[in-house]
Amino acid sequence: MKNVLGARCTLCGHMIPATPDITVCPECGGILDIEYDYDYIKNHLTKYELMDRTERSMWRYMEFLPVEGPGSTKKLRVGASPIYKADRLAEILGIQTLYIKDDGINPTSSLKDRASAMAVVKAEEAGNTTIACSSTGNAASSLAGNAACAGLSTYIFVPSRAPKGKVAQLMMFGANVILVEGSYEDTFRISAEAIDRFGWYNRNAAINPYLMEGKKTVSLEIAEQLNFKMPDYVAISVGDGCTIAGVWKGLKDLYAASFIDRLPRLISTQASGCCPINTAAAAHTLDWKPQEENTIADSIAVGVPRNPVKAIRAIEESNGVTVNVSDEEIMEAMRLLGRYAGVFAEPAGATGTAGVKKAVELGLIEKDASVVSVVTGNGLKDVANAIKAAGEPISIKPDMNELLDSFERLGKPLA
Amino acid sequence: MKNVLGARCTLCGHMIPATPDITVCPECGGILDIEYDYDYIKNHLTKYELMDRTERSMWRYMEFLPVEGPGSTKKLRVGASPIYKADRLAEILGIQTLYIKDDGINPTSSLKDRASAMAVVKAEEAGNTTIACSSTGNAASSLAGNAACAGLSTYIFVPSRAPKGKVAQLMMFGANVILVEGSYEDTFRISAEAIDRFGWYNRNAAINPYLMEGKKTVSLEIAEQLNFKMPDYVAISVGDGCTIAGVWKGLKDLYAASFIDRLPRLISTQASGCCPINTAAAAHTLDWKPQEENTIADSIAVGVPRNPVKAIRAIEESNGVTVNVSDEEIMEAMRLLGRYAGVFAEPAGATGTAGVKKAVELGLIEKDASVVSVVTGNGLKDVANAIKAAGEPISIKPDMNELLDSFERLGKPLA
Repeated sequence: MKNVLGARCTLCGHMIPATPDITVCPECGGILDIEYDYDYIKNHLTKYELMDRTERSMWRYMEFLPVEGPGSTKKLRVGASPIYKADRLAEILGIQTLYIKDDGINPTSSLKDRASAMAVVKAEEAGNTTIACSSTGNAASSLAGNAACAGLSTYIFVPSRAPKGKVAQLMMFGANVILVEGSYEDTFRISAEAIDRFGWYNRNAAINPYLMEGKKTVSLEIAEQLNFKMPDYVAISVGDGCTIAGVWKGLKDLYAASFIDRLPRLISTQASGCCPINTAAAAHTLDWKPQEENTIADSIAVGVPRNPVKAIRAIEESNGVTVNVSDEEIMEAMRLLGRYAGVFAEPAGATGTAGVKKAVELGLIEKDASVVSVVTGNGLKDVANAIKAAGEPISIKPDMNELLDSFERLGKPLA
Repeated sequence: MKNVLGARCTLCGHMIPATPDITVCPECGGILDIEYDYDYIKNHLTKYELMDRTERSMWRYMEFLPVEGPGSTKKLRVGASPIYKADRLAEILGIQTLYIKDDGINPTSSLKDRASAMAVVKAEEAGNTTIACSSTGNAASSLAGNAACAGLSTYIFVPSRAPKGKVAQLMMFGANVILVEGSYEDTFRISAEAIDRFGWYNRNAAINPYLMEGKKTVSLEIAEQLNFKMPDYVAISVGDGCTIAGVWKGLKDLYAASFIDRLPRLISTQASGCCPINTAAAAHTLDWKPQEENTIADSIAVGVPRNPVKAIRAIEESNGVTVNVSDEEIMEAMRLLGRYAGVFAEPAGATGTAGVKKAVELGLIEKDASVVSVVTGNGLKDVANAIKAAGEPISIKPDMNELLDSFERLGKPLA
């Protein structure tokens, strides 16, 4: 990989070669970060060359990615998700300019497809035919789907509280699914043990430094879709910390390669019931504390985050904003995204937008700001909570008088 | 619309101007069909000009569409769904070449987005601010989502058997939802009455001839994605008849405008428990009979189809193949699509692929044929049936010995 210098430890600074199977730092156990030769990137790709490319997926950005080549042709089309200028929603939130990047429009309906697609290519490079991970759901189903398309086997460990839709999705992809009766922490630990024992390729996001490189493609797309004119803020929900770190890495890479001329600030949103990263970041310390996992937003209910260092640093470096939101605020954001932008988000997917609303209300961001809010997963992933947030429909017998009666009761039709 | 000649009745042949608010034939009540000036299209668009376009949605094909212009910019990105060459699945099905067109990757996760996006543009052209429809689910949620993005109101009538996920999705989009305790036929009738009474724009697919013109864009995309080299067959699930008619219209339009040089044959698949269109088509008659609605594939459980004429004619004209599949065959196709192609389909979404499998088994199509199978909706739409089809995961306490025991019992790990 001529564009990659190596993998550097985020704790001790030790640098090692970026072979496909690296996990944590061999010196200190810290999480690794892939480093690029930005001069190489600049010399091999311009904005204009990029815009002329016909490839419509995350692999469009090859020069920014830590891979030997595009990998197998047997890949799902990950990325190329839409971005919408959401003027009506912006007005409701009281902000000048709002874009919604709908990453629920991915093959397995979440942003995690970007990481899993990367895992599949790196596992192939490493010569592995089996990949494993632990996940609250989306990393799991995305791994299962992307691996199934490529013909790799998967072992997936999920906590038993994961919504049935997510479990069904990954069973359908033929994954070997292990439901663990315990917390996310318990699930992670047993998966790590099993991966070690059986020699599977490791798709645990914090352990495997390549996955964040897949996730960062959401930032590369946002930049290109906005003609490289960056917004003031990028808002994202935060659980394990890997996604916000990936978003930031993408922005920094673009800046270092002179594709953009300023860096947005991050708006890091966690659920009030589980916000260890925001709590530490707000206190400007890396010394985070474990928390309970009390939120409906299961994809970000991570009391013991695996990537707090990269996440907290990303918030710090970007001069970011932290904001925590209640489950009611998350459900309100789900309704607003649906009603005013036509985007159906799962709870964690709407949490970033809930954070934008609250940040405006608290005066943490300016009313004339421009914001890109990333929706990280599709609402169909968690129908039980969607039903909870959406309310009940009108129910009638097939009779016009019943319809008219119910309209009269409800003050409809409105139009 | 310089590319459109008018709307011709499929029954009596009467031709009327293609104004935005037309429904059925004013002479005989027959369903209308939009007719194009193919010379105009040929003179204004070439394959090569098309391939250079930057627009990535169904509106890329403007010259083939019955609209005054691209409409509001406040639109969801409909279309541009991926197509996959599925070699492993082809091998399993015993066929030479298989492509999966995954139209579950759409803003509200089904092919129906193509029709609803068209309805929104035509409603705006007609000056309406409220749209209504009846639907078993996907037409409804797609209308709700597309209308919400554009800022239009919706009234949506669904039979009470519709899966909760679909209902939650459209509630979340802010639709006025009316659950009707009755069959699809009852639901359709009461919606038609209400539309008439309140003057709403009518998005009922068979009544509104424009919707099929939206659906046909799936064929335009397939053709372009295959570099205009058409397969021997296009396979699709059939319910109301509008989708297969739209697929065929798209293919015929491309052929008439000389964008493709041969027409594929259609493989029309219905559920054995509800197959009025296939029953009539197989007997080479337009004289179809109502049937019960006995299938898990709720999106195509239509005992009284609203568009039998166009559908049966499409099958006839294409020298098509009809095949009916059991619920077990549908669930098997769901598993195969997931496991060997990484595509998670709802039951109706997998029915076309189930039809390909069965058509091969019955010798209805040649083993050296090439087939495009269209997946019409995402599996997350109907989690209950996905769980039914997928089976149960392994469940353990967070303990390595429990894991090893369960592996031993199940003969894993395999890799």
